[in-house]
Parts: sequence; C-alpha cells; structure tokens
Amino acid sequence: SSRSIWGRLKGSFYAVSAWVVVLLVGIFAGAFAGIIDIGATWLSDIKLGVCKDAFWLNWEQCCWVQNNTQFGNEDDIQCLTWFQWYELFGLQDPQDWRAYLVSYLMFVGAALLMSALAVLLVLAFAPYACGSGIPEIKTILSGFIMRGFFGKWTLLIKSITMILVVGAGLSLGKEGPLVHVACCCGNLFAHLIPKYGKNEAKKREMLSAASAAGVSVAFGAPIGGVLFSLEEISYYFPLKTLWRSFFCAMIAAFVLQAINPFGNDHAVKFYVEYNTPWYFFEIVPFILLGIFGGLYGVVFNRLNLKWCQLRITSKLGKYPITEVLLVALATALLSYPNPYSRLNTSQLIAALFRECGPQDAIGFCDYNRTYTRTDQHWYPSAEAQPGLIAAMWQLPLAMILQGILTVFTFGLKVPAGLFIPTMAVGAIGGRLMGIAMEQLAIEHPDLLIFTGCFDSGKCITPGLYAMVGAAATLGGVTRMTISLVVIMFELTGGLTYIVPLMIACMVSKWVADAFGRDGIYDGHIHLNGYPFLDGKQEFMRTTLAYDVMSPRRTDPPLLTITMDTSTVEELENLTTETRFNTYPVIVSKDSQRLVGVVYRKELIHALKQARKNQTGIVSQSKVYFTRKVPKFQVPGIPQHLSLLSILDGSPVTITDQTPMSTVVDMFKKLGIRTCLVTHNGRLLGIISKKDVLRHIAELDHQDPGSTFFH
Amino acid sequence: SSRSIWGRLKGSFYAVSAWVVVLLVGIFAGAFAGIIDIGATWLSDIKLGVCKDAFWLNWEQCCWVQNNTQFGNEDDIQCLTWFQWYELFGLQDPQDWRAYLVSYLMFVGAALLMSALAVLLVLAFAPYACGSGIPEIKTILSGFIMRGFFGKWTLLIKSITMILVVGAGLSLGKEGPLVHVACCCGNLFAHLIPKYGKNEAKKREMLSAASAAGVSVAFGAPIGGVLFSLEEISYYFPLKTLWRSFFCAMIAAFVLQAINPFGNDHAVKFYVEYNTPWYFFEIVPFILLGIFGGLYGVVFNRLNLKWCQLRITSKLGKYPITEVLLVALATALLSYPNPYSRLNTSQLIAALFRECGPQDAIGFCDYNRTYTRTDQHWYPSAEAQPGLIAAMWQLPLAMILQGILTVFTFGLKVPAGLFIPTMAVGAIGGRLMGIAMEQLAIEHPDLLIFTGCFDSGKCITPGLYAMVGAAATLGGVTRMTISLVVIMFELTGGLTYIVPLMIACMVSKWVADAFGRDGIYDGHIHLNGYPFLDGKQEFMRTTLAYDVMSPRRTDPPLLTITMDTSTVEELENLTTETRFNTYPVIVSKDSQRLVGVVYRKELIHALKQARKNQTGIVSQSKVYFTRKVPKFQVPGIPQHLSLLSILDGSPVTITDQTPMSTVVDMFKKLGIRTCLVTHNGRLLGIISKKDVLRHIAELDHQDPGSTFFH
Repeated sequence: SSRSIWGRLKGSFYAVSAWVVVLLVGIFAGAFAGIIDIGATWLSDIKLGVCKDAFWLNWEQCCWVQNNTQFGNEDDIQCLTWFQWYELFGLQDPQDWRAYLVSYLMFVGAALLMSALAVLLVLAFAPYACGSGIPEIKTILSGFIMRGFFGKWTLLIKSITMILVVGAGLSLGKEGPLVHVACCCGNLFAHLIPKYGKNEAKKREMLSAASAAGVSVAFGAPIGGVLFSLEEISYYFPLKTLWRSFFCAMIAAFVLQAINPFGNDHAVKFYVEYNTPWYFFEIVPFILLGIFGGLYGVVFNRLNLKWCQLRITSKLGKYPITEVLLVALATALLSYPNPYSRLNTSQLIAALFRECGPQDAIGFCDYNRTYTRTDQHWYPSAEAQPGLIAAMWQLPLAMILQGILTVFTFGLKVPAGLFIPTMAVGAIGGRLMGIAMEQLAIEHPDLLIFTGCFDSGKCITPGLYAMVGAAATLGGVTRMTISLVVIMFELTGGLTYIVPLMIACMVSKWVADAFGRDGIYDGHIHLNGYPFLDGKQEFMRTTLAYDVMSPRRTDPPLLTITMDTSTVEELENLTTETRFNTYPVIVSKDSQRLVGVVYRKELIHALKQARKNQTGIVSQSKVYFTRKVPKFQVPGIPQHLSLLSILDGSPVTITDQTPMSTVVDMFKKLGIRTCLVTHNGRLLGIISKKDVLRHIAELDHQDPGSTFFH
Repeated sequence: SSRSIWGRLKGSFYAVSAWVVVLLVGIFAGAFAGIIDIGATWLSDIKLGVCKDAFWLNWEQCCWVQNNTQFGNEDDIQCLTWFQWYELFGLQDPQDWRAYLVSYLMFVGAALLMSALAVLLVLAFAPYACGSGIPEIKTILSGFIMRGFFGKWTLLIKSITMILVVGAGLSLGKEGPLVHVACCCGNLFAHLIPKYGKNEAKKREMLSAASAAGVSVAFGAPIGGVLFSLEEISYYFPLKTLWRSFFCAMIAAFVLQAINPFGNDHAVKFYVEYNTPWYFFEIVPFILLGIFGGLYGVVFNRLNLKWCQLRITSKLGKYPITEVLLVALATALLSYPNPYSRLNTSQLIAALFRECGPQDAIGFCDYNRTYTRTDQHWYPSAEAQPGLIAAMWQLPLAMILQGILTVFTFGLKVPAGLFIPTMAVGAIGGRLMGIAMEQLAIEHPDLLIFTGCFDSGKCITPGLYAMVGAAATLGGVTRMTISLVVIMFELTGGLTYIVPLMIACMVSKWVADAFGRDGIYDGHIHLNGYPFLDGKQEFMRTTLAYDVMSPRRTDPPLLTITMDTSTVEELENLTTETRFNTYPVIVSKDSQRLVGVVYRKELIHALKQARKNQTGIVSQSKVYFTRKVPKFQVPGIPQHLSLLSILDGSPVTITDQTPMSTVVDMFKKLGIRTCLVTHNGRLLGIISKKDVLRHIAELDHQDPGSTFFH
C-alpha cells in the first residue's frame, strides 16, 4: 500500500518539521535574549562612562583584568581602564562636586536620549512593540486575532527598544517583552510549515511553546517557563505542547548560556551559593512578607490601572513622547543620588539575594567584619556598621521610588516588563526584614525563639528573606502560583527554600485575592476591552441560556435566512443593513428548523463572486443552501445560485434550558465564538462570545458599557 | 445585605474547607507512605535475620551503632547485633555451605509466606487492591465510575499487602500503589465536604491532587508529582487544581520527611552528591541508552500485555494464589544467589546511582584504589579489580532476571508498581555502559574524544549513566515525558544533568512510539476494556457524525419517547425490552423535534415511584414531559403523570454533518457520555462514548470485538 506509506511519510514529516520549528524558535529566542542582555548591560554602563581601550566592553568586562568584579558602588572601586565621563573635563577626583555634577548630568542626559529614541522607534515603526505584551498574548491564545502583533517589525523594534529602555535605566524589566519576542520568533517560524501557518489553532500551540522559551531565557528557568506558559499565558494546553514547550525552553536556555551574558557558569541568573537551613520560627516573618507582597500587589495594580485608564480617557494619551521623557527624567534625576537606585536593577536584586562576603563593597554588607570561618563559609559575626545603618534609610527610599516609578512606567509606549521592578521592591523589603531579624538575633541571642539557631554558626540569612520578599510581591502583582515558586527556585538554585517560597506565594495570593480582583495582566486585558474569557474563573451562577441569548424578549425576532426561498437581493440587503457576523440558515420561517450557519464575510464574498463570474445571476435569482437545486429553466425565472459550499453545516447548538455554566464551559473548552439556541428543535436565538462576556460582567455588578468593548 | 455576607461566608468556608481537605490528604498520604516504607524495609530484612536486642529494628537501624551503614553485600559486613537465621542451628561461619543453605531456605520460605498472605488478603477483603491502580485511576478521572475502588478496605488492604509484597522481594515497586493509596485518602476526606462528596467532578479534582501527593511521597518529588498528575493521570486539570495539587504534594513530602524512612536528611530518595560536569561526546552513549530504553519499553509492554491477556482468556486466571506463589518462589530462588538481585531493589538503584566512595563494599565499586583527592572528592584512578569484573556478568544477569520477573509480576493479584523494577533494569544497563566508557577512558585516555575530559580530575561518572538509563527505560515503558525528567531530577537532586536526562527521555519515547503503540498504562486500559478516551491522541480522520451514529442505515429506527402521547405501560415495556441508557424525548413521531432526554435509571425509578405512591396511576395513564399537563379529569381517562422533573432539557446535540474530530473533541473536553445527532432540526440518531471508542478502534484497524468492551 504505497498510499499508506506516503501518508506515514507525510505524517512523520509533519512531526519532524514541528520539532524543527520548535528547535529554531528556541535557538532564536535564546539568541535574541543574549543580544538584548549584552546590549542593555553595555548601554546601562555607558551612562556612567566608557571603556578606554575598547568602547564596546561594559564596565564588568572592562574592569575584568583588575579581578575585582564584585557588584557594589562603582565609585568605590578603582578601575583604571574605565573612563568616567567627568574625566572629559579634566576632573580626576570622583569626590569633587563638579565631577559629581558632570556624572549626574551625563547620566540624566543619556537616559533621556535613549528613552526618546526608544519611544520614537516604537511610534514610527511598530506600535505593538510597547508594553509587556503578555495581556495581548493571553488574549490571542484565547482565540482573538490581532494582525501584526507578532510581525517582523515588532520583533526587530521591540528588541532594539528594549536594549534602549533597559539601558536608560527606566523602572522596567525585560521579562514580559522577552516572551513577546520569543512569540514573534514562534509566529515567524510557524509559517515555514504550511500546516501551522494556515491553522490558527496549530499556530497557537507553537506560541505556547515560544512563550515558555521566553520565560526560560528571561530567568534561566526552563521548567518554570513551561509552567508559566501553562498557568498564566496559554488558554488551551494539550500535552503534546507540554513536551515541545519544554524542549523549546531548554534549547533557548542553552543558547543563552552559550552566549553567556550573565558572565558566570551557572544557568541561573541570581544564583545563590548558600545552603544554610531555615528555622521553623522564621515562618512568621515569611508570612508577614507574604502579607506585604499581597498588599503591595493590590495597591500597585489599582494605582497602575487607574493611571492607565486616565491615559485612555484624558488628554494624557495624546502625548506619549512627552510622557516617556518626563518619566525618564524623573527616574534618572531621582535614581542617581541613591546608590541602590543607581544600580542596574538586576544587579541590585542579585546583590540583595546574595550573602555578604568578606569583599563585598556594597553598603548593606558593611558589618563589623570579625569573620568566623564556619563550614567553609565566612560569616560576619557582629553588629551593623555605618554602611548598613545608612542602608536602612537608603533601601526604603529606593523601594518606594521603585514602586512609584513602576506605576507610571508600566503602560508607557515603550517595551516594559514588570517582573524585575516588582522583584526589586520585594527583595528590598525582604532584605530589610532579614537584616532586622539578623540584628535582633545578634543583639538578643538568648531569646527563646533563637534556641538552637546559632548551632550551625549562622542564624538568619537576610538573602533568603530577600528571595521570599521578591516572590511575595511578584505573587501579589501577577497572582501566579506554582510557576512562580518553580521560577524562583530555578532562579536562585535553592531547592532548600521551596517551603519558604511557597508560604510567601500562598499568603500573598490569598491576601491579594481578598482585597483585589485581578492580577495585573487580567486587569490590563479588562482595561483594554479585549474579548478574553478567563479559563481560570469558574462560572457559579444559575442563569440559563434563555436569559443570555439574543434576541431578548423585547427585541425584533432573530434574523435568519431560509434555505431555498431567499433571493440574491434579499441577502445583499441583509449584509448591508445588518452587522451580524453569523446568519443562521433555516428550513422555513414556519418550521424554524436549523440547517446551518453562514458567515458574513463569506456570504458577501460569495455573492460578489457570483454576480461577477456566473452568468444569469441577477437580483431576483433564488439562492439555495440545499444539496438539490432545481435544474429546470423556465423562461422568465432567473438562474438559481447554490451557496451550499459556504454553509457551515455543523454549528454548535444548545437548548434554551441549558445552564449558563455549561454554556460558558463550552465557549472556553471548545473555543467557539457563537452558538445557536433551540427550543424543542426550533431555532430561538444566538449567543456570541461577547454576549457571554457581557453577561459575566453584569453578574459581577460591573457597568458593562464602560470598561468592555469600547 | 446580610444575604451577600452569608453567601460570602459560605463561599470562603468552601474555599477554606477544600484547602483543609487537601491538607489532610497530604498528611495522611505522607503518613501511609512512611508506615509502608518502614514496614517494607523491616520485612525485607526479616528474610535474612532479626535484630537481637530489638526485633522491630531493621538491619540498618540495628547495625547503626557499628557506624557502618554503607549498602553492600550484607554478608561482608560484620554486624554483631544482627542475628542471622543460620545461627538458629548453631552455625557461625557464613561461608559454611550449611549456613548458606539455611539462609537460602529461610529467604525463600519467608518470601513465599508473605506473598501468600498478601494474595489471600487481597482476594478476601479488597479485590481492587491488586495491581498498580494507575490504569483504573486514569479511567475514573476520565469520568467512569467504579464503586469501591477508593474505599476504606482498599486503602487498608493495599497498604498492608504492599508491605508484604515489597518485603517478600517480588519484582515490583511501591510507586503506583502509593498513588492509589493517596487517592483513597483523597476520596475518603472529600466526603467530609458535602459539596465534594456528592459532586463527582469536584471529587475528581481532589483525586488529581491526591495522585500528585502519591507520586510526591513515592519519590520525594513534589513538582514531579504535580506534573505526573497533570501529564499522565488527570483527564481534566483546571488551574485551581494545579495549585492545590502542589500544596498537597508538598505537605505529603514533608510528613514523609518528618517520619524519615530513608534515614538521611535529604528530601530526595536517591540523592547523588556528585556534581561533576558531563561532556559533549557523552551525548552519544546517552542516545544509545535512550534507544535501549525505548526498545526495552516496547518489548516489555508487549510481553506483559500478552501474558495478561493470556491470564484473562485462559485458565490461568482461575488460580491467582498458585500463580503468585509460583512467581514468588521463582523470584526468591533466582534472586538469592546473585548479590545484586538479593538486595532490596531501591537500595540497588541507590547504589547504582552513587559514585563509588573509598569505603564502598559493593562489587562494582571494586577498583584499584589508588585514590586521588581532587576537589574534596575521592576518585578511583585506575583499573577494574575482581569485584568489578564479576559484576560485569552478575549485573547483566540481575538485569535480565529483573526484566523477565517483572513481566510476570505486573498483573498478579497483589499490589504492584513497576517504576522501581523498570528503573532497576535501566540503571543496571546504564551503569554497565558507564563502566565500559570509564574503563575505555582509563585504558585509552589519549583518544580524541577524551580531550579535556580529565582536566577536572574525573572523566566519566558511571552513576550518571545509571540515572540516564533508568530515565530511558521508564520513558520507554510509561511514555512519560516532562514529568519523568522532573521526577528524575528531583529524585537525584542533580540540576546539572537535566540535559542528559532529557535526551534519554526524548530518544526513548521516540523509539518506543515508533515500534509500539501505547504506554503500559494505556495498554492495560485497553486490555481491561475500560471506556477511556485518550485525551492525548489527536483524531486525524475525516469521518462525519453521520458515519458513527446509531441507528446505522440498516438498523431499526431510533427508539424515542414522545413528549405527550406515551403511556406508563409503553414506557415500562421500553425499559424492560431495551438496554439503552438514554432515551430521547421528541415532540411527535412526525416532527422528530428533540425536547430532551431521559435516563434509563431515573425513568425506571420514577415509574416505580409513581405506581407506588401516586393514586390513579395505571398502565394506561398518559405520561407528560411538558410544562403543561391537562388538568381536567374525564371519567374513564386515567390520571396523567408528569415526568418533567426527570427530563434533561439540555442534551448536547450536533448535526449529522459535524466532523468526527469535532465530536471526539466535545466528548473529551466536555466529558459527556452521549450526544444526539440532528439533521435540519430533526432528531436522527445518537452517539455514545462507546460508539466513539469503537469507531477509533475500527479506524486503527483493530478488531473492535476482541479487545474492547467484552
């Protein structure tokens, strides 16, 4: 049977080609992430100075020879190969106020320049490149179509502008945008296989895999990426996709690691080297951090959504360039004086997560350095010194600044993710609590709760508190659960700390859910009025399909087409006079028995084609949606037109007594856009996805007109 | 609004109570796993001897004081507090042939006794306690109901007999049965909340969470457990369940760790301490191991299914006790002489995964011990010694024996999982290849492929090969993908080795899928004829609903009930003369317009109740399925009966032109059991889940009669 062999070959070709596409997506997602990381780090350092011998090196690479690559206050570390901008003016002493002023101005000026370039590029070439892209990706994966959202230009411009805005030091991260970039790769490569390029459902599977790769490269967390795609982004996630997503995420992580922008040999970004145990009493501060994270999430989401709504409704939205420049100016002006805000946010988070080593120059590591060597680690054994004390007011200021700036930044017309700034807020909060606990333990080691705590040499690990705090704020803002825990544990390499992380995420989610409705992404979906039917929320009411379908009782009856009595003219009038997307076809007005549906676009197209190409089709020609079209030609009766080919003979139908919970379920799981309602076999009405969304919104006591479907 | 407060309180009560149930399930699953582990280890050692001072201690605990707890040939290690059975007869020298014979006989006798007890308990008290339970759990989670499968007796008997059969040393593991035990806990606690106890769908969500806990305690792998539940077991996995499953799995793992049956402080079972890098050229042997695993999976599944089919079709199935005893006898007789087979399988796997330390007494660690200390680890630097050379034939024998015995063991009327034996086969195969590579590298360090390999002191890690081999065979047998990789990496704590594990799993799955159809669980589902519609397999044909529905063209027309002209007698005859589960109700025979459906059980019950309790209901009473029942009482016309309450007014309907791919999708995603087929609004036929399964089987060129639905 040569035919079955051919079929088998074709089948395996498709199977192999799908894997090849996934491989390519992984490679390109990793490569893009690597290039963006390298570019952003370089641009970020350019604000402070330039490498003397090789301008293309960033500060770390440039000063590598000095073998002093600890992060910290860059002023404090002498790096002779690095040219500070104030040296342009012949100034040598960084403590000189003129040197400070020059540096400050250069910092602000460079930030403004990069931001301006970024917003201009976005507005000129790829308006879809702004924002994080995750709300849109979620909506598209739920079945909505936005042309050009994953286009070549979006990919290119988003990548370039992301380098610029991260370099400019705006309060934003690369994570969401990297998911968007990976999805663009996925969309482009999917078109290599006709089967995927043409089939939206298949393409969506590819996008699910691509978004896993995006998170994977954003954090170096392949498993977390797959779970993020599963939990947060994807709407329909068949198991085949699970395995492909994992493959894609792994490949992307490996390509990124090969490019090695993080400059260490761990696949993880904020690798922590400590493995000290945590104690049972620490659950209390972890819960407190969870509550802090949840409350932060609620407040942040509400303020950000309010501000974004203001942008839509007021004149503010008309001046996107001015807005970006103002935010960039404020960010640069306010960040420079605070040593922690001035740092690249990723570097700040890494420093907050780490334990203080003997060579750490950063302020909050300024302990009384009587180090004791316990089990191959150095532990500061004693009290806080000036640097740490200064950090106790500098860090809170940095945290508040970061929080407020992010409210205004997320929603600007530049690419912007909010994982990194949110994590920074949580990490600072956590570190502060950790330092407080640590000092308490050092001052009062005889307290009951600290019994047995000093047995292993070290009692409190402030870096762990920073990790827990970061997980808590992220949980509060995004409402992620298992994927967040897995990302955090892959991110930090700390398998030991899965329980603290879980406690923080759970408490944070519970607190946030109690005080606020949606995660930030769902909030933005609502704000933008995307037709997104949340697969996660259960429909708990007892309404019936009858209560939701149109026409309502007071409306005119449902517009239908009879299968063998309509004329071309009647149908043309129908399409011009009404705006419905779906027209039911029935046997006769009398019986109201459903035959199928025709779609507006196809109907218009078919009628136009028939008028143009078929001889004898006139306004009075009868249109048939049946298998049998009368053949005989009576003079005076115009030629018949058969439109059976555009009839969809298998619409989804339900009875009017079907509970809405079942209907919502069908819309979610089958991904349909309309369904027809019958009673005792007679067609009664129609329910569209928008009807369902409006109904849910009404039940939630929202005003459906204002936020939805403008 | 006191009512909305009440509603809110009720809502939060349900939310909290669900979490409490999940917590309880986690605690009990962990506790059961701990008890089973402790009991099985003790019984396993009882076959060899007993602790002198405290009979309730196992060998390891008993000999703890000697501070020599390395696994190995137990004969070789002198443990004075342990009483060997031959000492009963005054024999002292273990090398004496009489001592060997006594030990041998005691070993075989004890194994037979425990197996006999196990099979008797299962047959007498809980027939559902046999096997792994995973095929049945999968089927139940897909919507099928098996009463008593998760009952109290099943829980109790399965736990007890699992201790017995693992103690008896049969070639089986605890993993599948632990999932069953956890699900029993889930089912029992679900009944604490009326909402969950009464609603099968809600209960299934709880079972998904419980099965995650089962895998979590089986391997100490909470994330892997959740993914296993998602990938392999669950049919419908809403995201709410994901988070609860994770919580449940974590709790269970922690309770188990608190009980601490593994005796080490790691949450992971086969914790490996090495972290040596792997080299790029090693991908070739890893791929070979993947191919080996895939082929093993195909051969094992085919042989096991053939044997199980023989058990069903031949007389073999009538003698379950004899069969268990014969297998136990063969296992004990053949295992004792081989030092590797004699070991507890978990201990063997742990030894195979570990690197050889300087004190390792086990045979395959017999290197020429010129150890070099590199980076705090001891590495044997040179050639194989007699023990290792002997292992080169003992290990393959142990592998073959394990493989063959497992074919006959999986399917016996005792609890039996196949993770551990399958892993053992793969781990032995992998270790052998690792030793071969290692010796090759030691003999020919100047080969091109080994360039740079010895830079870090150690070139080949045979333990890693064992891990990869175990993953490959498991992948071949079960066809798991991402969950297997995650389980293996949680199991061994080796984040470094995720790529080798992934390569092995992928190659193994591809090879196995190319030569064999199903994983072992799906194979057993087919074999037992469970009505399971595989959610993972895509339906790729172009058939229509019309081709599948009954009645077929040659059949008598569809049996229907008219909504207002049937009599009680007619309906009673209908239910006695036919065996259909669903009867469509139509407006009239003439119009064939569908009103709804009634279910057999409810119809019989309602008719009986009406005859009994309602006065005036006789055989000629008219039955109404309409809202309006004629009220007037004409003398001579008997009382009318309204059965509107049992009418399901919202059956799922499709048109006859609906593609079967859509229909299969609806069955899978909506979890329905029947759907009705209409044409132009007239009822035409009905499609049941069995029709769909039969159709898929026919398309797959299977003989539907033989394997399905006997």
